Amino acid sequence: MSGSTFGRLFRLTTFGESHGPGLGGVVDGCPSNIPLSEDMIQLELDRRRPGRGEASTARREPDRVRLLSGVFEGLTTGTAIGFFIENTDQRPRDYSRIKDLFRPGHADFTYQAKYGLRDYRGGGRASGRETVARVAGGAVAQEFLRAEGVEVRAYTVELGGLRAGVVDPAGARDREFFSPDPEAVAAWSERVREVRAAGDSLGGVVEIEALGVPPGLGEPVFDKLDARLAYALMGVGAVKAVEIGAGVAAAGLLGSRNNDPLTPEGFGSNNAGGVLGGISSGQAVVARAYVKPIPSIAVSQRTVDVSGRAAELEIGGRHDISAIPRIVPVLKAMVALTLADLMLMDRRLGRRA
Amino acid sequence: MSGSTFGRLFRLTTFGESHGPGLGGVVDGCPSNIPLSEDMIQLELDRRRPGRGEASTARREPDRVRLLSGVFEGLTTGTAIGFFIENTDQRPRDYSRIKDLFRPGHADFTYQAKYGLRDYRGGGRASGRETVARVAGGAVAQEFLRAEGVEVRAYTVELGGLRAGVVDPAGARDREFFSPDPEAVAAWSERVREVRAAGDSLGGVVEIEALGVPPGLGEPVFDKLDARLAYALMGVGAVKAVEIGAGVAAAGLLGSRNNDPLTPEGFGSNNAGGVLGGISSGQAVVARAYVKPIPSIAVSQRTVDVSGRAAELEIGGRHDISAIPRIVPVLKAMVALTLADLMLMDRRLGRRA
Amino acid sequence: MSGSTFGRLFRLTTFGESHGPGLGGVVDGCPSNIPLSEDMIQLELDRRRPGRGEASTARREPDRVRLLSGVFEGLTTGTAIGFFIENTDQRPRDYSRIKDLFRPGHADFTYQAKYGLRDYRGGGRASGRETVARVAGGAVAQEFLRAEGVEVRAYTVELGGLRAGVVDPAGARDREFFSPDPEAVAAWSERVREVRAAGDSLGGVVEIEALGVPPGLGEPVFDKLDARLAYALMGVGAVKAVEIGAGVAAAGLLGSRNNDPLTPEGFGSNNAGGVLGGISSGQAVVARAYVKPIPSIAVSQRTVDVSGRAAELEIGGRHDISAIPRIVPVLKAMVALTLADLMLMDRRLGRRA
Amino acid sequence: MSGSTFGRLFRLTTFGESHGPGLGGVVDGCPSNIPLSEDMIQLELDRRRPGRGEASTARREPDRVRLLSGVFEGLTTGTAIGFFIENTDQRPRDYSRIKDLFRPGHADFTYQAKYGLRDYRGGGRASGRETVARVAGGAVAQEFLRAEGVEVRAYTVELGGLRAGVVDPAGARDREFFSPDPEAVAAWSERVREVRAAGDSLGGVVEIEALGVPPGLGEPVFDKLDARLAYALMGVGAVKAVEIGAGVAAAGLLGSRNNDPLTPEGFGSNNAGGVLGGISSGQAVVARAYVKPIPSIAVSQRTVDVSGRAAELEIGGRHDISAIPRIVPVLKAMVALTLADLMLMDRRLGRRA
Repeated sequence: MSGSTFGRLFRLTTFGESHGPGLGGVVDGCPSNIPLSEDMIQLELDRRRPGRGEASTARREPDRVRLLSGVFEGLTTGTAIGFFIENTDQRPRDYSRIKDLFRPGHADFTYQAKYGLRDYRGGGRASGRETVARVAGGAVAQEFLRAEGVEVRAYTVELGGLRAGVVDPAGARDREFFSPDPEAVAAWSERVREVRAAGDSLGGVVEIEALGVPPGLGEPVFDKLDARLAYALMGVGAVKAVEIGAGVAAAGLLGSRNNDPLTPEGFGSNNAGGVLGGISSGQAVVARAYVKPIPSIAVSQRTVDVSGRAAELEIGGRHDISAIPRIVPVLKAMVALTLADLMLMDRRLGRRA
Repeated sequence: MSGSTFGRLFRLTTFGESHGPGLGGVVDGCPSNIPLSEDMIQLELDRRRPGRGEASTARREPDRVRLLSGVFEGLTTGTAIGFFIENTDQRPRDYSRIKDLFRPGHADFTYQAKYGLRDYRGGGRASGRETVARVAGGAVAQEFLRAEGVEVRAYTVELGGLRAGVVDPAGARDREFFSPDPEAVAAWSERVREVRAAGDSLGGVVEIEALGVPPGLGEPVFDKLDARLAYALMGVGAVKAVEIGAGVAAAGLLGSRNNDPLTPEGFGSNNAGGVLGGISSGQAVVARAYVKPIPSIAVSQRTVDVSGRAAELEIGGRHDISAIPRIVPVLKAMVALTLADLMLMDRRLGRRA
Repeated sequence: MSGSTFGRLFRLTTFGESHGPGLGGVVDGCPSNIPLSEDMIQLELDRRRPGRGEASTARREPDRVRLLSGVFEGLTTGTAIGFFIENTDQRPRDYSRIKDLFRPGHADFTYQAKYGLRDYRGGGRASGRETVARVAGGAVAQEFLRAEGVEVRAYTVELGGLRAGVVDPAGARDREFFSPDPEAVAAWSERVREVRAAGDSLGGVVEIEALGVPPGLGEPVFDKLDARLAYALMGVGAVKAVEIGAGVAAAGLLGSRNNDPLTPEGFGSNNAGGVLGGISSGQAVVARAYVKPIPSIAVSQRTVDVSGRAAELEIGGRHDISAIPRIVPVLKAMVALTLADLMLMDRRLGRRA
Repeated sequence: MSGSTFGRLFRLTTFGESHGPGLGGVVDGCPSNIPLSEDMIQLELDRRRPGRGEASTARREPDRVRLLSGVFEGLTTGTAIGFFIENTDQRPRDYSRIKDLFRPGHADFTYQAKYGLRDYRGGGRASGRETVARVAGGAVAQEFLRAEGVEVRAYTVELGGLRAGVVDPAGARDREFFSPDPEAVAAWSERVREVRAAGDSLGGVVEIEALGVPPGLGEPVFDKLDARLAYALMGVGAVKAVEIGAGVAAAGLLGSRNNDPLTPEGFGSNNAGGVLGGISSGQAVVARAYVKPIPSIAVSQRTVDVSGRAAELEIGGRHDISAIPRIVPVLKAMVALTLADLMLMDRRLGRRA
């Protein structure tokens, strides 16, 4: 239970590092008779690929998934689903320059402190590449949810301090930056170019929305739907804040304004983000994740080496300058995994048919 | 696993409702030889009592804890610690008016949907009273943390849209609203009086800080320290957003500004909130919880009854108009439980001595 | 997770020692709308009481259960069910003679080694009295199973080396020693008297049978039904072996004799004990637990004190001379808890309707 | 949590079927800085290979393990260790004859009932081949235990009703049938030949012994060492009974004979099998598993097809006629995994240094 397993009933266990044979995982607990193929998973992996828009690097990372078990004649068998994605870009490189330095904003310092050793060639389990396995596992969860009538979608609502205007999630999937606003794309591209030229990096905000979630998901007291979403999203590297529904803004509202009235036609608003008392209400479930700027920057930074001596660090090579948009399908995957898990949980604890 | 257990190694399991014999819990996994008494737990329970400042009701709720097991001659034995807090204010009341109505912003609707029945006399497990058991369990965690040199403190940094000026956590514990700013108390009291007069309610922001946390706490990939804190805090009723360190603000910063430089004297700033790659860095761990306004308000609200017919609801009786300050020791308890759990986890999985 | 919680979905968490305020527990995960009352639980507790037959002491132990939460108007609410049983026989006694001695066959030595301290007044969590909470939790599980059409029964098939002749489980519940054989009672009583007179103790074998178990319970690979039963039964103090179906005997049979043929009318035999590939087959689930003799005996024994010096120990007072029959309802409770847990598990993971 | 994960802190999650790309797993929770290589794991896999002795088939199954993560420069990093073993013997075969028949003693019937579909080409997750991943995971556990001074060994003490005479575990590893008795090998070989000639199969008994186990392992109340061993061993396909120490025999002994006296030089006997009150005592931990005969036999058997119609089944091809000796390293692996897990657990809950 050192932290590589997510979920209680619909469970994803992952492994792998950026500098090793590859990444993979096991989905255990997916019900039987759900259609599943490598193509379905590949589709989500492709959304996470670099080279989508200005903010990403041009490194080639094909990320072909291979299904290893748990599917027979196109259907899940109800048993463990293993998968693996080979690392293909394994050119030998020279790490001598960064081997003994702790990169600011990275996990180098804390991994060294925790384990007494670390794979200095990459971020190990703290590398962004770790999220490939989340996306693959989340793709399985999404197939299960689809069979239950639930759809999850994710899109960028702010980048580098610039908010999207209109929010039209339906088209975001195929737009650059997963932008819900066609107008925002140009402004965000321009902002990215500026910041890249300055050798710096930037952050943003991603919204995730789940439609068709039935009422009843979430377990009191500690496993509330919103608690589990916060856990799922904050666990993705670079996320520094999570909010549900009105979120941060709710703290400044009066109760009369924040409460969502019930009417015979349904709720009159959705400040709750689809969660009441930690349990889904049947409204759209809405969460937002605040993503910090990528810590790898070209400008020179102060740091220390493993002996504690002062040093200057300049990180070369091509790096993404924002976790957005690549983090968007990752956050979608985490919400899907959470909902699949709580849906299975509720199937037993909820109202008996 | 229906959600009443928190933690993996240092575990709290709770039970109880506002309208029943009482509330209690079991702490399983607390190491042996930690000093523990009913008085130590009582101290924390007293901090959660109503009647502290303007925002709370005057209902009498003595909340006397009784230790039922796991302590011998003043020391924990290493086995399960049971405790119970009797409900004393059990005057029979007339619930016929609200029995069939769903209160907006409450869990009435979702509990009915999930379980097919609900205890209409109170919020059941969704009642704020549930948090009594969290505070008691958290008090045990704090005694364990104390023995490890860790201190957790919590204080209000915003109420009804008014920010605290200075933040001096040391004195907050004994100040009204657990305010870290002596000046803020008067302004907050005034705001509370205004809102109460209007029959409305308000929210705010609570900061929790842990000092003395050793580097190494948090388990990659899914059980990162920040993920577990988000889970712990978002699971408290009324919390709608959680941030770590710079949090929401980090999304708008450039990387060069957000990265905390390392120097031979330590980190140069703490935008990370004491967490790098999901693992504690040795800096102060800092989290903030955004608390929505209390949904029980005196002004009339639109709702529906269990048959889906439109209705008007006016909630009488005396109610808190803000979850602050009573939520403050609850959030502190949740952070303490999280740290205790991850500290035990790291004791095994981290660096071998 | 120090071991006081049993089950994954239908979960029992217990606490309490023989020499303290009492014993209790929390059942979390019981579905809503199941009829439950203190009387239903009390019935099972009364079956575990001493004074039933020759092998037990005459100590008074009324063991009145109090329900603390999770039931509203006679039905489970779907949330945590707390319960407590006060210890009433708390006469102060003189423990100075045994305070520093390790009793052979007891957990004194191992608790001291593990925790560095122990409650020398009784067995702490290793005391037989701990099983009171198992029986109460198991009673809740049995009410759930009853609603699902499953019945669990347990009875003694061997005592002090003497086997029961006929095995008629239906009548065992109300017979002395929970004997399935009316003839065996006299012989067993005689055997018990002999051994008691010699200051010694004896063991035996208990069979547990579950009827009406639907096919499909048990989760491959590690959480097979038989694995979970073995875990449940071997975890009861004094049990030293567990077998399923033909069990020990199966190791000596040929495959042609051990395989249970399938016929259009059902299985032709039940050597499997109702479990194939770790999953229930729809046949009766049959397990047997081998119970060692009670370690507290009147005859003098060699031991050491906490400093490792040789000593002689004579245990005075009245003690049970066999864990049978009091262990019988405990073992039944453990099987019920296991089946309830796996039934909920299968509700989600098994075949989709 | 559908059952493919074993352990709480030192965790093994497995996947894979006999008729698919291969088998694999993830070990999560192994401490950092433990020497680990593919060769170390391969050594254990080779012990499980067929073709060792008369009872096994001659099918070629090289079972080459590939390490996929969690090891850097020959040492574990403290993070998830992924591994994979390709299935190489994947000749297309004709399954039309058995596709619709339930093989007696196999899981065909129960998998169909549970999941509504099954991979008729093999046993799926109920196949003996599943144990390859257990052996690989157990090899990792054994490397960890070795670093802690613990050694686990396993050997056959009975085959086809014939008991081993002397029990000399030290030499068993390299003897046929993992026999602790050089004399028994010839008699067992003869017995196997007879039974094979008759188209039948046979079972036996395996003993597993752990040396160097420190006192303190095992968690009261439900996670006792013996309970966890029973769970681990009974979960291996074909095991029908598990005993600890004197086990079955203890039920027939008097207390004065069964109790192990303590002396200044240590315990005077080991009927307890190294476990007192569910916690290791520092003596050798001794368990025995009773293994049923292989259900695949050449002689004709009565069964039904998926429509419930009567049928005759003759299983052709080459099959093992006993799970022994191939099950021996599997059982050793399960004990190693159990001890590794409880050792990590005790490191936090046991006596504070």
